[in-house]
Amino acid sequence: MAYNLLKGKKGIIFGALDNKSIAWKVAEKAHEEGAEFTLTNTPVALRFGELDELAKMCNSEIIPADATNMADIENIFKKTMEIFDGKIDFILHSIGMSLNVRKKKVYNDLNYDFLKKTLDISAISFHKILQVANKMDAINDWGSVVALSYVAAQRTLFGYNDMADAKSLLESIARSFGYIYGRDKKIRVNTISQSPTMTTAGSGVKGIDGLMDFTDRMSPLGNATAEECANYCITLFSDLTKKVTMQNLFHDGGFSNMGMSLKAMTMYNKAFEGELD
Amino acid sequence: MAYNLLKGKKGIIFGALDNKSIAWKVAEKAHEEGAEFTLTNTPVALRFGELDELAKMCNSEIIPADATNMADIENIFKKTMEIFDGKIDFILHSIGMSLNVRKKKVYNDLNYDFLKKTLDISAISFHKILQVANKMDAINDWGSVVALSYVAAQRTLFGYNDMADAKSLLESIARSFGYIYGRDKKIRVNTISQSPTMTTAGSGVKGIDGLMDFTDRMSPLGNATAEECANYCITLFSDLTKKVTMQNLFHDGGFSNMGMSLKAMTMYNKAFEGELD
Amino acid sequence: MAYNLLKGKKGIIFGALDNKSIAWKVAEKAHEEGAEFTLTNTPVALRFGELDELAKMCNSEIIPADATNMADIENIFKKTMEIFDGKIDFILHSIGMSLNVRKKKVYNDLNYDFLKKTLDISAISFHKILQVANKMDAINDWGSVVALSYVAAQRTLFGYNDMADAKSLLESIARSFGYIYGRDKKIRVNTISQSPTMTTAGSGVKGIDGLMDFTDRMSPLGNATAEECANYCITLFSDLTKKVTMQNLFHDGGFSNMGMSLKAMTMYNKAFEGELD
Amino acid sequence: MAYNLLKGKKGIIFGALDNKSIAWKVAEKAHEEGAEFTLTNTPVALRFGELDELAKMCNSEIIPADATNMADIENIFKKTMEIFDGKIDFILHSIGMSLNVRKKKVYNDLNYDFLKKTLDISAISFHKILQVANKMDAINDWGSVVALSYVAAQRTLFGYNDMADAKSLLESIARSFGYIYGRDKKIRVNTISQSPTMTTAGSGVKGIDGLMDFTDRMSPLGNATAEECANYCITLFSDLTKKVTMQNLFHDGGFSNMGMSLKAMTMYNKAFEGELD
Repeated sequence: MAYNLLKGKKGIIFGALDNKSIAWKVAEKAHEEGAEFTLTNTPVALRFGELDELAKMCNSEIIPADATNMADIENIFKKTMEIFDGKIDFILHSIGMSLNVRKKKVYNDLNYDFLKKTLDISAISFHKILQVANKMDAINDWGSVVALSYVAAQRTLFGYNDMADAKSLLESIARSFGYIYGRDKKIRVNTISQSPTMTTAGSGVKGIDGLMDFTDRMSPLGNATAEECANYCITLFSDLTKKVTMQNLFHDGGFSNMGMSLKAMTMYNKAFEGELD
Repeated sequence: MAYNLLKGKKGIIFGALDNKSIAWKVAEKAHEEGAEFTLTNTPVALRFGELDELAKMCNSEIIPADATNMADIENIFKKTMEIFDGKIDFILHSIGMSLNVRKKKVYNDLNYDFLKKTLDISAISFHKILQVANKMDAINDWGSVVALSYVAAQRTLFGYNDMADAKSLLESIARSFGYIYGRDKKIRVNTISQSPTMTTAGSGVKGIDGLMDFTDRMSPLGNATAEECANYCITLFSDLTKKVTMQNLFHDGGFSNMGMSLKAMTMYNKAFEGELD
Repeated sequence: MAYNLLKGKKGIIFGALDNKSIAWKVAEKAHEEGAEFTLTNTPVALRFGELDELAKMCNSEIIPADATNMADIENIFKKTMEIFDGKIDFILHSIGMSLNVRKKKVYNDLNYDFLKKTLDISAISFHKILQVANKMDAINDWGSVVALSYVAAQRTLFGYNDMADAKSLLESIARSFGYIYGRDKKIRVNTISQSPTMTTAGSGVKGIDGLMDFTDRMSPLGNATAEECANYCITLFSDLTKKVTMQNLFHDGGFSNMGMSLKAMTMYNKAFEGELD
Repeated sequence: MAYNLLKGKKGIIFGALDNKSIAWKVAEKAHEEGAEFTLTNTPVALRFGELDELAKMCNSEIIPADATNMADIENIFKKTMEIFDGKIDFILHSIGMSLNVRKKKVYNDLNYDFLKKTLDISAISFHKILQVANKMDAINDWGSVVALSYVAAQRTLFGYNDMADAKSLLESIARSFGYIYGRDKKIRVNTISQSPTMTTAGSGVKGIDGLMDFTDRMSPLGNATAEECANYCITLFSDLTKKVTMQNLFHDGGFSNMGMSLKAMTMYNKAFEGELD
């Protein structure tokens, strides 16, 4: 069911890889809601992913780019503004990667070059995108920018490693730049803190299955899916949320404000049954 | 501009008084978006307000009720379910009143009977409404409940008095009941923490003008209006926010995450100019 | 080991029942650190508890009082100031009780008379104590007031029931009155959010054993004990924390900022082993 | 007045520059309370500062080091453990610097090499110190680590620039590493979020005078001084706070939980007087 919430709006979607990606679902929904947008990801991701399929479906162009590279980012905005013959209205940042996680370097044995890459790719890229867009005056007044985050920015989850620090930095950048964009251009900047989601990227995190079962039972509404997250993004890109800015918005079935649920406790207590035999 | 976001949805709106009320604006927007709903307020408020006008505009019925009275609340749900021949999908709670504020009893000289009334009217009424609705099974699965709150629940503002405590209690009730509603019925319960708003109720608060100027300059997007708040409510009642629950959502132009803005500081610094003469 | 941190300081300790009580431990530690204080609890608690033993140990007088009764509270301060021939320096509020919990009324079937009692005993009593002390000018400049709270004020735990709402209200009162006391008298007001603790009162909460195992494994330092909490209280009553006010301070081994620990996840995952057989 | 709170404890204090530094005050207090410690700062800081004077007063050795350099950090721990013939009990991290602030590059025109330096010096140095200490097993069980932070980690203050992001990252590192240290060694890691303080470093921040006047009037107890912050640090290094970990502790006279004070509003309102003439 579509509402034309984004009719006439133009945007850029960073980070769609395959049809499990949240960014992919956002693209689908944004298209349904009447938006036009360009898609971008790294050349490597483009090779492994299936972005052509999405681009065709959404009538979008793909602009390959490394989101840590200023020239590449400038090129994205330049091309996008040429395509739409004007400024854009929304941006989705769904980018994150940790070589420490990938290479199984634990948090008390971080490789600092990897850490710098984690921060650069997962957080500073957001600043670069916002800085370039600001200098190129690429976003219309009352535009909306969203980056995807995770509760690890506030609470430690073993195994999430330096991505937790990257998400804290990302949310801080959203606040810091949100102030400037709000003040100067009436543009809002927010992060969505999404439930753990079984994307291709997310599936690499250690112990993700047990964790997802736990968060699902802890969350009164269960874990939020990628598709539900996409719906939520649409509301933030729409004209109905114009005064929401600098916020980290939990889209997690209630997990963030739970201390203990009956369902999770029941499952936890089962662990003792065997022990009592 | 309307999107049919609430097409087919039924609801109850508590607390509309006159056309400055946030609840009034929510009613207008919900009507535009295709919702049907009943309106309710106390008999006294109905006498002083202009609710008939709103009811006519929205093709709604008015059900007088004291939201602290269980029989009255039961009657609201009974009548509303008769009118719509079934369950409802959304509820707005926009109710708050402090006799301590009205009678100018300061926070270190509270009248405890007044305090109990403040809590009963402004917070416990929300529990009563949710408890009655739960017992009567009055809300459809994936329904949405919103109550209006204020940042005083987190941060002390001189003069806001025992309403701050009432708002803390209100937000706690939203979390506590949000867990049960989510778990049992997939219904979400949230609060919106709105900018100070020049409603007829809000205008009684001490020093509200200076405060509104300050929050407006502190907020990168300025204070949010009642109408903008209504738009935001619509997104929370819509099917696009199904996994957002137990949250307190700031709709305040960014105020809640500001420490100091250039505009507010500039104005503040002016205060010293005269002193230096 | 004692440091004389409270040498010369006078106080009032509300809520010691027996030697499992946090307030009891605070009394012991405060005595060791050189403080003098009066003890108070309800006549019923005095009958069932062993407060005489504590009073003897600490060379303290017991003043029976219902902390919801203004005359009783006035009497506590009057007597205490007579005993010490002057003002006091610190207050501990360790009072909480829910008839809904005791009578097994669940949160979606609250008895509202019981709820009012819960709020009156567990939260409003704190306001009454602070208001009486303020009017009687009973606390020295740079004095310190602490109330005990629990993370349920921020996050929902099934079974904690209306005590969660009471703790939210309590923490709000600490902020609201903390502003006034700080501004007018340089007195600080804080709450400590303590780990679940196996006090005689705490042991009534549903599912407390499983929950305590979970929080112990989630907390990197394990659950904090009553005695450790008492040590922390001493620092807040001392002259070393003069500028800490209006805060809710987590004393919980790190639980509040954990999303998932290896230990808790390992135990949780065991629950599935039987299921996979 | 001293209490022997740190008798027998050994530590390392990073970041003392001159007698306005918070780290300097912490050194003085820790010495008074019976601690022994080494002092460290960069060679440049040592040249411009007056650290010899402090070292003499506290009977401490100075170990020059660049806190972003792994070899230098290893050397600090090696030397310190030689001097004390064993492990240490506490660490203070009071390090922060932004070339973007110094070179007046505003937040929407950041130099990204400077940003990396800001993060490396002000936040990642803390991880490096903790990682080295962990690998060298340099901290005794139940030791305590504190880093100094600022409310800009949560709320945007114009002109604070990329230091806000650095402080967010710092606080995240404290949580992430606090989990590991707590779990493995019973060592706690916290940050203190201190009032704006007129240190030699702090005085470079844009508009700091007006801001300090504002926060002083907003804070019911006024801004906290460097000396008061040192007292608070002592409690966190002492054995009385063993179960406090992963926390960001506001030491700010109440500022963090204020929305508006009478004093700040009164001053703010004066700004309009001239305008009305």
